[in-house]
Amino acid sequence: MLEVKVSQLKEKLLFMGSIVERMIGESIRALVERDEDLARSVVEKQEPKVNKLEIEIDEMCINALALYQPKASDLRTVTMVMKINNDLERVGDHAVNIAERAIFLISKPPVKPLIDIPRMAQESAGMLRDSLNSFTNRDPKLAVDVCSRDDTVDNLRDQITRELITYMISDPSTIERGLNLILIARDLERVADLATNIAEDVVFMVRGETIKHMGHPGTDYLLR
Amino acid sequence: MLEVKVSQLKEKLLFMGSIVERMIGESIRALVERDEDLARSVVEKQEPKVNKLEIEIDEMCINALALYQPKASDLRTVTMVMKINNDLERVGDHAVNIAERAIFLISKPPVKPLIDIPRMAQESAGMLRDSLNSFTNRDPKLAVDVCSRDDTVDNLRDQITRELITYMISDPSTIERGLNLILIARDLERVADLATNIAEDVVFMVRGETIKHMGHPGTDYLLR
Repeated sequence: MLEVKVSQLKEKLLFMGSIVERMIGESIRALVERDEDLARSVVEKQEPKVNKLEIEIDEMCINALALYQPKASDLRTVTMVMKINNDLERVGDHAVNIAERAIFLISKPPVKPLIDIPRMAQESAGMLRDSLNSFTNRDPKLAVDVCSRDDTVDNLRDQITRELITYMISDPSTIERGLNLILIARDLERVADLATNIAEDVVFMVRGETIKHMGHPGTDYLLR
Repeated sequence: MLEVKVSQLKEKLLFMGSIVERMIGESIRALVERDEDLARSVVEKQEPKVNKLEIEIDEMCINALALYQPKASDLRTVTMVMKINNDLERVGDHAVNIAERAIFLISKPPVKPLIDIPRMAQESAGMLRDSLNSFTNRDPKLAVDVCSRDDTVDNLRDQITRELITYMISDPSTIERGLNLILIARDLERVADLATNIAEDVVFMVRGETIKHMGHPGTDYLLR
């Protein structure tokens, strides 16, 4: 039965979403609380799960297409699950990047108290959660709202980058650590971008029309 | 006819591939030759084309699935075109990032002669080209070769990052420019990662089995 298959697919995708969202939270918590074990568990325990789920979901989608030849709305749902699956796997990769950078940073003295990075992580993870909620509830309004929040995250990234550059200039011994923190902010920005992609896909899935490339800026700003 | 449709799809995808490959080359040339007009043309003229193609290809894929209900090999091809389409659009985004950073860097004195970044760009663009060749010729051997070249690009990125950090430490006035160059190296690394994704998808398309997450390291290394 196609209906059962589609609902299994969605369930599995949401399970994967909950894992990668937790990975983002834990990698940042590891950084802030200087908890190396937690950072290692993101890399060693969580990521393999995500990789496995990605392959399973992909196979389920291809099987659903082959066996049931879904049309219209179900077809859009299955193809969107494939895309969201891909996006969630990348969120997992960014969490791993953050955890690996955290392991490095924990081995050195702190550059500064971390306030904005956890805030940015909360924003990005919130966008991810809401993009998945908009998927579950087929809620294009929430999806559009997610897209509109991308600017906040971009602004936080710019602010974090500027502040860290100031630290790096005034004390060059912080350059390598500052760079790692800047790169963490970029990982979080990418998570927000991927949440935006998912939200755009949800709008397409529900309405059958795309809002991609229609003016919420996705490209990186310069560091000015 | 499904056959005609699939061959149109492939043709369009390769056209998009040729545009994004050129965008990478031009954004790097703009950086090296300090050619602001060229950088602007990547952002203003090339990227809109890629965005348009992405949407068109996605629609063609969904239509092909809806109308022809392809099976087995054709089904894998169509779903892989959707994935590769997504990856190519992201390559275009990275070219735009590079072009925007080039516009910033052109407005300042050069930090150092650029040797490794153009080399890295050549490697990444070469991987992209070969991943698309492996797609056109259904050549899993070439695809596996592409995956194996990812390490070279990662090593170049580490080398570039280390060298720039040395510059930044010895002369803090270069920090902002150095950071932009490091971020360009990361954009190029992501292009190589996306080429690797495409190559993995080609192996799956041809052989029906995945080589994803099987040990060519995709995660970022720490900056040590």
